[in-house]
Amino acid sequence: MSRRDLKTEIAHAFGTPAVVIDLDRVDANIARVQAICDKAGVANRPHIKTHKIPALAKKQIAAGAQGITCQKLGEAEVMVDAGITDIVVSYNLIGAARAGRLAAIAQRAPIKVCADNPVTLQAYAEAGQAAGTPIAVMIECDTGRKRAGVETAAEAIELARIIKESPHLTFKGLLFYPTEQSWPATQAFFEETKAGLASLGLAADIVSTGGTPNLANVGRLAGATEHRAGTSIFNDRMMVACGAAAPEDCALSVYTTVVSRAGPERGILDAGSKTLTADPGGGLDGYGLILEHPEARIKGFAEEHGMLDLAKCNQRPAVGDIVRVVPNHVCVVVNMVDRLIAVRGDRVVEVMEVAARGRLV
Amino acid sequence: MSRRDLKTEIAHAFGTPAVVIDLDRVDANIARVQAICDKAGVANRPHIKTHKIPALAKKQIAAGAQGITCQKLGEAEVMVDAGITDIVVSYNLIGAARAGRLAAIAQRAPIKVCADNPVTLQAYAEAGQAAGTPIAVMIECDTGRKRAGVETAAEAIELARIIKESPHLTFKGLLFYPTEQSWPATQAFFEETKAGLASLGLAADIVSTGGTPNLANVGRLAGATEHRAGTSIFNDRMMVACGAAAPEDCALSVYTTVVSRAGPERGILDAGSKTLTADPGGGLDGYGLILEHPEARIKGFAEEHGMLDLAKCNQRPAVGDIVRVVPNHVCVVVNMVDRLIAVRGDRVVEVMEVAARGRLV
Repeated sequence: MSRRDLKTEIAHAFGTPAVVIDLDRVDANIARVQAICDKAGVANRPHIKTHKIPALAKKQIAAGAQGITCQKLGEAEVMVDAGITDIVVSYNLIGAARAGRLAAIAQRAPIKVCADNPVTLQAYAEAGQAAGTPIAVMIECDTGRKRAGVETAAEAIELARIIKESPHLTFKGLLFYPTEQSWPATQAFFEETKAGLASLGLAADIVSTGGTPNLANVGRLAGATEHRAGTSIFNDRMMVACGAAAPEDCALSVYTTVVSRAGPERGILDAGSKTLTADPGGGLDGYGLILEHPEARIKGFAEEHGMLDLAKCNQRPAVGDIVRVVPNHVCVVVNMVDRLIAVRGDRVVEVMEVAARGRLV
Repeated sequence: MSRRDLKTEIAHAFGTPAVVIDLDRVDANIARVQAICDKAGVANRPHIKTHKIPALAKKQIAAGAQGITCQKLGEAEVMVDAGITDIVVSYNLIGAARAGRLAAIAQRAPIKVCADNPVTLQAYAEAGQAAGTPIAVMIECDTGRKRAGVETAAEAIELARIIKESPHLTFKGLLFYPTEQSWPATQAFFEETKAGLASLGLAADIVSTGGTPNLANVGRLAGATEHRAGTSIFNDRMMVACGAAAPEDCALSVYTTVVSRAGPERGILDAGSKTLTADPGGGLDGYGLILEHPEARIKGFAEEHGMLDLAKCNQRPAVGDIVRVVPNHVCVVVNMVDRLIAVRGDRVVEVMEVAARGRLV
């Protein structure tokens, strides 16, 4: 079957816009990340927020991953239900409702959670007490990204002290997400924290670094034990732009139909902001790369309309044409849909439910 | 129960982030739009892409709406299943798969669809043939928005001629979505088209204008028979900014927990781009208004992190605080979740499934 036939088959069977993954590329991406981690002597703990599909998490584990990372407790619940147990939730979980859910999951799997403040530790202690088993806690450390994470080693050590003193918590390790510039600062942060932990009689079992852009830096933090990369399983325009992936590493594209060509230099795709999302991809030009018309620009959106600027296109698409768009950011696109269409070569081989979409943090 | 208790109840029962609608405000918004249309002598055909919930569509009809507008055939399928039959799908539907679905729905309800090109008409003719009943078609006309829609009356008349000649199609009307500046041009477009239609022996049963910002202009097009507004049922920061709604008309907010306060001027919400979306709201400052801290700025996102800039806040939120965010754009936020939590005053009264989310165009 040709690529053209595949497009027609997908449009006919599933409609457009359809979010399609190429499993041959997925397999290659999984193997590539595993090889990078193996070479660095660092465990691989892929972040499943990108795909949210247990079968893909199992592929990652079968390829050698130590376990997985989740961003939401609801994602972890789905993965434990699917039989995956070695999970880090890289998030500050807060509140009584989450404590109850964490207690339930901790009785089924050796889950590890993260904290950057004492309020979160209190929720974890409640969970540990309710579960009858201590909760394993990692301390999230900020080294320049200014997202979450304590800003100083002293704060990290103080949280470790609170963990040590609680009968319902155990100290498990440290979570880092260095920026390209902050590796030396991260090393200094780690060394100072490690010394403070030692004075408490504690040591970090897990020292985790993160990010697909940081695949070039796996092992750069001396003492790191794990790396967590998410986007790398599919890649996207943002990862190509930053050099973390080649165009041929992009495993996900949105099959979309040109539904209007009301002017010579404009056109409309049936993929709008409710499919491709308004994610600017960190400042990329436009909202996706059209593989068949790379000179076309997706210049804006209505909710179900992708607005094409075709001024620079010599070959312009016609109404009814099906084109493939590599999105700016795959993780948010997967989150929009209930299923991914999986292909190998020019054949549809599987429809995969995005089982952990729409779950609670 | 106080507002504080309501927040705790919602966080406990449903977790955060939770997308919450205030039904008293919803009712008032529905009544306000109906009154505007009634006063102008124009039928009300609200666009359900905003809420995607049959029970809310039925509220709109009970308040006096003629019928509803959908943006996707999949939305129309859900609404017909729920017993709503007078539906306009304001979209160019393309392809054999959609023709088949349209045929099925046309046998159950007097659905009206839109076209701006002959390829779409071909799909509609196939649907009409398969259904054994002609498909009612409206012609989408562009008057300055440059989204979809024919750009000239001559093109509209030519499409009407094709419709007239097909035994499987009937001409139903014209769809407009004027910009603030284009009302005179729209009137001229309409008059020229109307004359051309008359020379073909055709007349538009439906002449539709659209948009919540255009609620101030309902009836401004002489000859308009209907108006379709979507966002007005909930409103949002964008509608307040453009003057189409007052702050107290905003019926939807995202209840979200402050999960990190790692620096004095920063904080993290558990609502990120997978909840509030990266929709910039047409150039608003930040990604939502925090009702409890209007001076705080949601300056950016990770997928499950909303990044707060608290520099201008005198009263800064603490870790564990639950706050309410009015999003930039409600329509895309509703599309992210499987349910809305409905409250009246300080009581949760219903959980509403977003039944038409995740459906095919």
